[in-house]
Amino acid sequence: MNLSTQSQACLPKELADSEVFLLGRLGYGLKRHAAEEVDAAGFSLYDYSVMALLADGKCQAQASIADVLQLDRSQLVGMLDGLEERGLIERRRDPIDRRRHRVTLTTAGEGELAKLRELMQRIEEEFLAPLDTESRDTLYGLLSKLATYHDKRFPAPAEADVVAVAS
Amino acid sequence: MNLSTQSQACLPKELADSEVFLLGRLGYGLKRHAAEEVDAAGFSLYDYSVMALLADGKCQAQASIADVLQLDRSQLVGMLDGLEERGLIERRRDPIDRRRHRVTLTTAGEGELAKLRELMQRIEEEFLAPLDTESRDTLYGLLSKLATYHDKRFPAPAEADVVAVAS
Repeated sequence: MNLSTQSQACLPKELADSEVFLLGRLGYGLKRHAAEEVDAAGFSLYDYSVMALLADGKCQAQASIADVLQLDRSQLVGMLDGLEERGLIERRRDPIDRRRHRVTLTTAGEGELAKLRELMQRIEEEFLAPLDTESRDTLYGLLSKLATYHDKRFPAPAEADVVAVAS
Repeated sequence: MNLSTQSQACLPKELADSEVFLLGRLGYGLKRHAAEEVDAAGFSLYDYSVMALLADGKCQAQASIADVLQLDRSQLVGMLDGLEERGLIERRRDPIDRRRHRVTLTTAGEGELAKLRELMQRIEEEFLAPLDTESRDTLYGLLSKLATYHDKRFPAPAEADVVAVAS
């Protein structure tokens, strides 16, 4: 970023001191940066989330995938069409309930997911660069606690994380 | 949020464990929530930022305001027009350089800003509810360190914050 000295001095203390402003800026900036990097690799952040979800193996029904990623059903269908055309996922009728589709990752899909994981790890590493391992663990514990409280999709932090935050 | 038990169990560990995903979700969700609340009060988050900036008194030139808030100049002009029509700000020609405008907050603007500050404090309080005072200080210290590293508009954290993080 190229900012003049004047604008550096300009950010009011009221905003710099606000955790809402800080977290909003950091989260939004990080998400936008990650979206650009993933886009350059030929994917969207949602493609990555869907593939990570499918690799996990616990969620294969289209309706559940849309729910957990908070995606519009028709938006998800379009995305799955794209991944299927590229041979990265497969959709089959559920043998138990034929109105449903079960979605699975192909071997080619697993290969692309492995590349995206490396990319996400690099982005995370770059982002967390100014923090040492202990500070990263502390930050993760605090963010997990907030995420669990505000968003029921996140599991409660493990005991070890809670202890790390409290210490 | 109303999520089924199935979708709760569905979020893959890979995403729940990722600080990029966590921070992206929290920051984006918080920003959207704050935007909705501020919108219901008749303002945008940028209106609040501009008024906070003007109250600070260090930044009155339109060009500097746009720079520090990373706003498009024409976008800022539209916003300032709206605030001026409502009698919340004043624009005057700079007596030293008449090509420039100096923007200041009116008494009515100060009153509206005070209400928005209360609103932002309530949002922050609700968001940070699961964390005690010590954890909030630790989180603030860590986020400040990241913000200072990635965004030159943020001032370096005060010595006291750094110590709090290290302890």
